[in-house]
Amino acid sequence: MPRLLLGDLYPHDFGGDVAPISDTMARSAAAGSQAIVWYAESGDVIVLPQAPDPEFLAYRTTLLGVDRESLRIVVPPIAEASPYFLTRDRLTSAAGLAELRDALAGRTVDRIVALMPDAAIAALATELGCPEALPGHQFFSQGGALLANGKACFRAVAAGVGAPLPPGGVARGRADARALVMELLEQGHPVILKRDFGGGGMGSEVVALEAIPHPVGAQRAVHLPSTDHLDDYLDERWDWLTNGDRFPVVVERYYHRARAIFAEFEITDEAATFEEHGEIIHAPIAFAEFIPAPDLPPDALDRLVTIGQALAEGMRMMGYRGVVSADAILLDDGEVLLTEWNGRMTASTTIYRNLGRRLIGPDFSRCRALGEFVGWRVPSFPAAVARLDEAGLHYDPATRTGVVIVKGFNPEDSTVRYCVIAENTEAATQMSSRVEGLFGPKDQVR
Amino acid sequence: MPRLLLGDLYPHDFGGDVAPISDTMARSAAAGSQAIVWYAESGDVIVLPQAPDPEFLAYRTTLLGVDRESLRIVVPPIAEASPYFLTRDRLTSAAGLAELRDALAGRTVDRIVALMPDAAIAALATELGCPEALPGHQFFSQGGALLANGKACFRAVAAGVGAPLPPGGVARGRADARALVMELLEQGHPVILKRDFGGGGMGSEVVALEAIPHPVGAQRAVHLPSTDHLDDYLDERWDWLTNGDRFPVVVERYYHRARAIFAEFEITDEAATFEEHGEIIHAPIAFAEFIPAPDLPPDALDRLVTIGQALAEGMRMMGYRGVVSADAILLDDGEVLLTEWNGRMTASTTIYRNLGRRLIGPDFSRCRALGEFVGWRVPSFPAAVARLDEAGLHYDPATRTGVVIVKGFNPEDSTVRYCVIAENTEAATQMSSRVEGLFGPKDQVR
Repeated sequence: MPRLLLGDLYPHDFGGDVAPISDTMARSAAAGSQAIVWYAESGDVIVLPQAPDPEFLAYRTTLLGVDRESLRIVVPPIAEASPYFLTRDRLTSAAGLAELRDALAGRTVDRIVALMPDAAIAALATELGCPEALPGHQFFSQGGALLANGKACFRAVAAGVGAPLPPGGVARGRADARALVMELLEQGHPVILKRDFGGGGMGSEVVALEAIPHPVGAQRAVHLPSTDHLDDYLDERWDWLTNGDRFPVVVERYYHRARAIFAEFEITDEAATFEEHGEIIHAPIAFAEFIPAPDLPPDALDRLVTIGQALAEGMRMMGYRGVVSADAILLDDGEVLLTEWNGRMTASTTIYRNLGRRLIGPDFSRCRALGEFVGWRVPSFPAAVARLDEAGLHYDPATRTGVVIVKGFNPEDSTVRYCVIAENTEAATQMSSRVEGLFGPKDQVR
Repeated sequence: MPRLLLGDLYPHDFGGDVAPISDTMARSAAAGSQAIVWYAESGDVIVLPQAPDPEFLAYRTTLLGVDRESLRIVVPPIAEASPYFLTRDRLTSAAGLAELRDALAGRTVDRIVALMPDAAIAALATELGCPEALPGHQFFSQGGALLANGKACFRAVAAGVGAPLPPGGVARGRADARALVMELLEQGHPVILKRDFGGGGMGSEVVALEAIPHPVGAQRAVHLPSTDHLDDYLDERWDWLTNGDRFPVVVERYYHRARAIFAEFEITDEAATFEEHGEIIHAPIAFAEFIPAPDLPPDALDRLVTIGQALAEGMRMMGYRGVVSADAILLDDGEVLLTEWNGRMTASTTIYRNLGRRLIGPDFSRCRALGEFVGWRVPSFPAAVARLDEAGLHYDPATRTGVVIVKGFNPEDSTVRYCVIAENTEAATQMSSRVEGLFGPKDQVR
């Protein structure tokens, strides 16, 4: 019985309407959705919004020992909406279903694996007569993805399960947002304002009564000369903060030098089980991550896992099934505060499940450090692989160390994303420096 | 130690911005918020958006044996926003807090009782230094009221806990809404479209390929000549259905002659406990209710309580505390389908807790039927009481039967809302007919 893998990274900000999504963002999401191929096992049927690059497909299947010929890849015909997303009309159109049924050749899907399960994927499962193949089908069929990926819902449920949060609140209206920001500013704190949906720091900005040159986890910091300027700021940014008044905004105290850590859990009918932890390095928006999080004080890790577990258990009781990342910040004094949940398979999930457990082995987290880096500027994907091989830096199963290219060539900025696998974080960082020098000094090519 | 009672019925549709709320709706909400006075016990401090009618206040306190002089009533100064709501700025303004502290006279609040607990009330509890007096403070402080009163969130969590729902879904965007409506119409079913927030049928309408003269639980039914007209309908109504694209819309199969029943639960840290059940009679929008629901088949009641309990347990795990009404429909074949939750003290809560348990006694549901009716047209509140007394119809503690006026005189339409307490539903209905004839035949005064 085949598995059905669905690559889709739909930005919920736009509420089912793909028209207002910028082309850049849509192309980036479509490229990200190719990550589902990392999950492929022999015999899988894979649905993607765009055909994968054949070279990169071959690279991944070879690395993980998957029979490329046994995979069936379906790109449903582009319906009214965008070519970059697996929208409901695309997934459930007569033509799309026909292609999919052809690929399944009469077999019943026994498991659906989706990067971001949502109502469109639940509708597809219903159409295919295999709702039980999608864990959490009922929850997702009724729009649960909007809850499991929204920061406003997160704040309420996280507070509800007793998890510690940065001081702040959720505002649907401007007057409430103003009151929340003002209170924190008057207490002398910088403030981070977060859009309900939006990841990697691109959906957040910092507002402060001081200059904050390189904010972490936010696209910029706005220096207000005084609180008298708060209304001007909100005049200018309310529309952006709320996607045109469509969503609430989250207002939180901003901690400038906090570490950004996360714990992932797998939620099933029976339990929420801790999977892995890691750290995101921002400068200022996400550019690297380490799995496991390096040198985490044991009590901080305990706290992260304990409060993440409570959060995941709350999601389980709501009906969510699948992977959730409980994101947090670690303060200087050792306190751990939750900052968001992500009810989807994240970039981190791809790394620890495929490069970790499958490539290195089930013991990977006890003997290896994984460091993922974005933005390595290269002439092309094959050139990058060739240069890694020449330099002896490509992943070697014998030593279980080396570099893997994680995400295909991005023509927008001529970069690839790669993962360094080394014996420890220091070695991984050193190897990363070598990688980024392979096509000349870093500051020459950037 | 005093209790603090907060009367507020804030329509969440407007997301913290009271400006777009119509005057009629705002006045109606302000009048509804007076229901909190029914909960008063001697020594309570009561916060209201508008001063109560002294005669109606005296009526309620006398009926329930509460020492009127021991109550302190605070109407916070009207801030920037509306006089009809207890907005955050009104509750937490320096002047409002000063009045409240004066009323408290140095005493610490040990319990907050709110019709509709929300972030503004949580902020007030924090200001007063008594967050623990508000059950679910953390959840409400982070916008939980938006989850606990929204129909979109309800659908996801109800499906997630395995409760049976009318077929349908939740749509954030118009393309998805169209697909959901089309699917049901093509299956031959009428469809009800529900705004995310909005009660008593005023936030819903039915769309069907047939004429439905008196839809139940909806403000109107739209007869589409064919599915070709669906786009025209959505063109015209999308803005209304989504409050200007602010909220998702719920799309469900509509069951024309279903009974509208509900079960209420009290959610504490430890458990979700079944409280009462009842039935709403619509014609077409809510006009009466019976507690308990008359002649409910025992297995239907069992199902209602079982699935309501699962829903309430899900809310408890999310952090909600307080009363929740699990609303449902009972189909001809005995099936019970959940239709919404209401995370607040409803009109029904007011009836069974105060007229039921306090006035009649803890055994009320075993020996009495309560019928609440809206829209009794009367010259004035005192005239209504006098006429009930003359007719021997007013509530009599000796027989534990008779009529209680539940909601004060509404100058908009010259009506009051009343509750009939009788030995059974038939007797209650008969008594209601006598009440509505007291000022002449019903069709003369209407």
